[in-house]
Amino acid sequence: MKPETSADARQLIAATGLEARQAIRAGLWSGHTSGTAPHYVQGNVVILPEALANDFLRFCQRNPKPCPLLAVSEPGDPSLPRLGADLDIRTDVPLYRVWRHGELVEEVSDIRDLWRDDLVSFVIGCSFSFEQPLMDAGIPLRHVEQGRNVAMYRTNIQTVPAGPFSGPVVVSMRPMTPANAIRAVQVTARVPAVHGAPLHLGDPRLIGIADLDKPDFGDAVDILPGDMPVYWACGVTPQAVVMHARPEFCITHAPGAMLVTDLLNSELAF
Amino acid sequence: MKPETSADARQLIAATGLEARQAIRAGLWSGHTSGTAPHYVQGNVVILPEALANDFLRFCQRNPKPCPLLAVSEPGDPSLPRLGADLDIRTDVPLYRVWRHGELVEEVSDIRDLWRDDLVSFVIGCSFSFEQPLMDAGIPLRHVEQGRNVAMYRTNIQTVPAGPFSGPVVVSMRPMTPANAIRAVQVTARVPAVHGAPLHLGDPRLIGIADLDKPDFGDAVDILPGDMPVYWACGVTPQAVVMHARPEFCITHAPGAMLVTDLLNSELAF
Repeated sequence: MKPETSADARQLIAATGLEARQAIRAGLWSGHTSGTAPHYVQGNVVILPEALANDFLRFCQRNPKPCPLLAVSEPGDPSLPRLGADLDIRTDVPLYRVWRHGELVEEVSDIRDLWRDDLVSFVIGCSFSFEQPLMDAGIPLRHVEQGRNVAMYRTNIQTVPAGPFSGPVVVSMRPMTPANAIRAVQVTARVPAVHGAPLHLGDPRLIGIADLDKPDFGDAVDILPGDMPVYWACGVTPQAVVMHARPEFCITHAPGAMLVTDLLNSELAF
Repeated sequence: MKPETSADARQLIAATGLEARQAIRAGLWSGHTSGTAPHYVQGNVVILPEALANDFLRFCQRNPKPCPLLAVSEPGDPSLPRLGADLDIRTDVPLYRVWRHGELVEEVSDIRDLWRDDLVSFVIGCSFSFEQPLMDAGIPLRHVEQGRNVAMYRTNIQTVPAGPFSGPVVVSMRPMTPANAIRAVQVTARVPAVHGAPLHLGDPRLIGIADLDKPDFGDAVDILPGDMPVYWACGVTPQAVVMHARPEFCITHAPGAMLVTDLLNSELAF
């Protein structure tokens, strides 16, 4: 595994998506991409054999809030020209996870050795793309202020199944004042390609979350007096669904180590 | 006072703003305009002497959420051509309230006898214009289901003063599921000319409302299990502010008996 690079250093190296991918491809870092090229769209990555790709494509189409699909490759083709002319999905993600029959077998920073002619790459929008517009709108994000990963929870909201893919929607939760929650609905509704408007506001029990202090993924966050929890569909949903389907072979990005694209966040907003 | 006409009869008579005004001018009804010409914008009316009009105009400019100004007349001119070519503010409101030094002195269906050369008319957007889009979006409105007036409350949110005009923002409250609250933010954010996005969600105490069962205006509404209260700035705010300023002379519409215009609700949405 390559050495970690600080967020400040990553911003210095990589102001654009292209610069970020060049640095990652050159082996300059293999860690989180939070704060990297902050105006550029980052994506969740799922790479599946063609035999499962049609089912997964239908799954994404049926569940656009947790699985907003930014691009799908041709089978065996490692390029994704819509997301970056030079983009090679085999080298441009900082850290990959390799899965066999639903079990994590290794983490690697390059998958050229593992590439197959039947692999199809899916890139799915990520909440990093709406956190920047939220902060630009003057809405403080508690987990950022508190230096933590966002809190994520399995809900009792079921995805619409397709083939072997099914399971609950995972949400990320950001506490904020009610006035900011209203602004946040407005800001994120304008970016349906990165999860869009929230799924839920307020009482966690109404969507099957028993205890906000015990997230299923990420870190618990301190909720300030008067804050209201706001819940968005989360890009962890497709990963959880894929792991549950136990495909014979699958590659994903490692948590937080996203694909950085050439799309501007602002291009996604209507 | 003219006889009341049922909502069904009003819809039959008046599908458009023009038809509504013609029926009102002809003396066919003097009551509520709820459900009348439902696709047309209705407005709150405040008529003030010119000496106060500039302060009130500045007040509206500073408080666009409770006081979204649709039109202002020239002093002494009873027409408002932007809202309807034929419109005469002296005859086209179903029922007027006449105020002297802040006291209600009479209710009349025509103010031609009271007209003065220095009177300026203000027409302010009204939540009727966003209730129709909310219902069109499939969001049930509890007070409509329960056959009641909407519940309105004085808050601890202060308007920005101008001249003699000041006081708290009055909100209308509509309970709905959290998922519908999110949709309602999206729908109403698109119509800033009729109060726009909500001011608050959830806990009433955070905006100084002690008891939702005791509204300051309108009727209490039954909140269903799982419902979240959603609060919008209300057109009662400018009336309360004007009454508090005790102008020597003022005319307003009677509650619910609004000015029906030729603007389509859909024209106000971006």
